[in-house]
Amino acid sequence: MIGEKVKKLLIESETTLVKPAEQVAVVGIKNRLNHALLLLTTDKYAVVPVLDDQSKMRGLISMPTIMQTIMDIQDVHFEKLGDIEVGEVMDRDFPYVLEDFELEDVLHMLVDNAFITVVDREGYFKGIITRSEILKGTNRIAHEFEKKYIVKEKEIVAQ
Amino acid sequence: MIGEKVKKLLIESETTLVKPAEQVAVVGIKNRLNHALLLLTTDKYAVVPVLDDQSKMRGLISMPTIMQTIMDIQDVHFEKLGDIEVGEVMDRDFPYVLEDFELEDVLHMLVDNAFITVVDREGYFKGIITRSEILKGTNRIAHEFEKKYIVKEKEIVAQ
Repeated sequence: MIGEKVKKLLIESETTLVKPAEQVAVVGIKNRLNHALLLLTTDKYAVVPVLDDQSKMRGLISMPTIMQTIMDIQDVHFEKLGDIEVGEVMDRDFPYVLEDFELEDVLHMLVDNAFITVVDREGYFKGIITRSEILKGTNRIAHEFEKKYIVKEKEIVAQ
Repeated sequence: MIGEKVKKLLIESETTLVKPAEQVAVVGIKNRLNHALLLLTTDKYAVVPVLDDQSKMRGLISMPTIMQTIMDIQDVHFEKLGDIEVGEVMDRDFPYVLEDFELEDVLHMLVDNAFITVVDREGYFKGIITRSEILKGTNRIAHEFEKKYIVKEKEIVAQ
């Protein structure tokens, strides 16, 4: 359980924590790798969500994954980029939560993941939660908590 | 100013917050881009520090930067990778702090940067501070703060 007062400063609300789907760069599962590489290069993302043609969340694609696919020991086979679909090489094991997520689950998952995907119960992509948003909350707690609250150690008070 | 009690849970100490230089993947400023690309692909890093031959911190190199360098409108010129040095295209405007950094500076900088470089006063690379480490602290605060402390709103108490 997360303390109520800490939570109040950590996030404004569960809803504003989520960067909505329409603001997130994504690629289609049937896009070719050259398209995905161009998007990742242009927008400078390390990794983006992969959606199917119904906008359901299917995986993640990263630049290292694309490069590994076309690299062998001696060379990089760039000509292959137009022949391979994103769905063939994407990472299907992506971290996600449902829309009624618990903040504590998200906090744990973000220690090891740059962002967490939010999907509804049918698997439709709803948005992402980034480390950056949580770090804004961490800043608020660090700077404001002890200004707003009187904090005493429990042991001392109990004596 | 960061509250003392919040800080105690947020980080164990300023020293343990830093991932030391010898554990961080880096590239040399005179390395060619093919070497840097291989490192980024193999280790799955989005961006790594660039050091000169004295181990001084000089910049950052990312996979999007490398790809942009060899891409033009119609093609990717992979053969150029062996001719270009990292130092020619790296990002020289990197976020950094000195070893006696203030935690609040780091917290602010991490909202917009995946990691912060730590250097000494001569510019030697000492390590990095990652979002992941701060998120571990955020988890500790979220879960333990109100268990360890009695927290009261200041306005109510002041009445």
